Amino acid sequence: QWTLIDWKPRRPDMLVDPFGLGRIVQDGLVFSQNFSIRSYEIGADQTASIETLMNHLQETALNHVKSAGLLGNGFGSTPEMSRKNLIWVVTKMQVLVDRYPAWGDVVQVDTWVGASGKNGMRRDWLIRDCKTGETITRATSVWVMMNKHTRRLSKMPEEVRGEIEPFFLDSAPILEDDGRKLPKLDDSTADYVRTGLTPRWNDLDVNQHVNNVKYIGWILESAPASILEAKELYSLTLEYRRECGRDNAIQSLTAVCDDVNSSGIECEHLLRLENGGEVVRGRTKWRPKQANNFSILNHVPAHGA
Amino acid sequence: QWTLIDWKPRRPDMLVDPFGLGRIVQDGLVFSQNFSIRSYEIGADQTASIETLMNHLQETALNHVKSAGLLGNGFGSTPEMSRKNLIWVVTKMQVLVDRYPAWGDVVQVDTWVGASGKNGMRRDWLIRDCKTGETITRATSVWVMMNKHTRRLSKMPEEVRGEIEPFFLDSAPILEDDGRKLPKLDDSTADYVRTGLTPRWNDLDVNQHVNNVKYIGWILESAPASILEAKELYSLTLEYRRECGRDNAIQSLTAVCDDVNSSGIECEHLLRLENGGEVVRGRTKWRPKQANNFSILNHVPAHGA
Repeated sequence: QWTLIDWKPRRPDMLVDPFGLGRIVQDGLVFSQNFSIRSYEIGADQTASIETLMNHLQETALNHVKSAGLLGNGFGSTPEMSRKNLIWVVTKMQVLVDRYPAWGDVVQVDTWVGASGKNGMRRDWLIRDCKTGETITRATSVWVMMNKHTRRLSKMPEEVRGEIEPFFLDSAPILEDDGRKLPKLDDSTADYVRTGLTPRWNDLDVNQHVNNVKYIGWILESAPASILEAKELYSLTLEYRRECGRDNAIQSLTAVCDDVNSSGIECEHLLRLENGGEVVRGRTKWRPKQANNFSILNHVPAHGA
Repeated sequence: QWTLIDWKPRRPDMLVDPFGLGRIVQDGLVFSQNFSIRSYEIGADQTASIETLMNHLQETALNHVKSAGLLGNGFGSTPEMSRKNLIWVVTKMQVLVDRYPAWGDVVQVDTWVGASGKNGMRRDWLIRDCKTGETITRATSVWVMMNKHTRRLSKMPEEVRGEIEPFFLDSAPILEDDGRKLPKLDDSTADYVRTGLTPRWNDLDVNQHVNNVKYIGWILESAPASILEAKELYSLTLEYRRECGRDNAIQSLTAVCDDVNSSGIECEHLLRLENGGEVVRGRTKWRPKQANNFSILNHVPAHGA
């Protein structure tokens, strides 16, 4: 079985995670977890969907905090944050996909955190193919604290900084911000508008809010089928501006920009409430679909039968 | 780490599945795979959703076929089936949930197949809590073959029977069919009707059809919030009648029946196309929500930091 990870020397601690719950590595500053891509995590393209990748990012972020012993009573909040009624909210997320994994592929997700300005935290992720070591996705995000009662953003209290700073890895972001502003779309600048999107019961997280990852599904609802069918999403930038509760109906707007190069396409997106309030601004980049990299037949487990 | 499976004697073959892809056990007739419940697989109730459980059932069924070396070029089709353009379609699914697992819980899903009448196959599943060995869910299903070009049901060809019969386990179904007919709801017998449900891009499987598991989400869309909030779904019966493609809009109908006992509720369901064609008939049973069994704090990995 170990041939799957031949790209890395075998170490005794590789046996400590038989159930795939992840572990802390590299002097305690990097959390690492393997995921085998499951049949229900792949889409019509036969590869993992962007939602699947973002689910794996979310899961490793939470497990990192949990493994570090910093889990308070909230989802990812530290004990001091819980005491002060603070929760983490993500304000920006950037994902760059080199290649989407297929059913049965095993990926290793590494994640670490660092400072972002005075009051924020940056969290980066690196996803690699476990078999080859090849980097297949990089992602970076910015998080700030919000008071869960007032729903207002908060400075980072010194007590919280004391809890989390020891876990900060001093490194450059894995993706550089390109500094381009995300414009606010409206009915006149959007090419496609889809209205009446409502949360399904299953879209809600434990706070009865729509989970961050679900927004990408709504964004794609207003992308034209011609792009979804012929192109592959490889770059995603999201700016989260407002929460969406279970009773909100969402409108999804997409503007298709001129081809950024001979074969690529760039889109701008907006999710907004029916009263106009902005929920998420986004930008996606698309390239021609790569050759079908569905590899079921290469993945018949050697230990079968 | 192995304390998690103390309920079962340690065997050398427990190390052969470090990536959670599953393995064949018990003389080659049972396929077994562990799943750790991930943060994005739990819902507002803080436990795994019924969709998550059904995803795990689907994944183990496919991996069983794959591990047995019987995977043709389709999703779960054997080589002889592929040659004859036959695919498996599920006609009935019954799930009985004793308890829903929480984030970080590890469950073991065992699955096996047997004969169902002359032309069908039964597939059963048993889900246990890996920590305690407690049975938490049982499920059974009936599958028949369909010609993928004519979309008509097919008898089981002898060549296919020859491929799969050696894998049949001769045992009683894990759940007995209660023999109750599922009625066909209409606008006059339904208490709740939800129209205009459309597949999201991400709901489609590799055949560009709506994945079987997605239907339960649509069924719950017409269940009243009062039930979703106060009750827990513990029994589900689905009869699949027709495929749903990417361009179909679905209507979801629910009838709430009289309390079957002092605290339980029974519902009947129908998913239909806008032209009236039946897609799925269903019955769900609900009981009062159990005490919150969310157990994050019991699951901080011992190997953290």
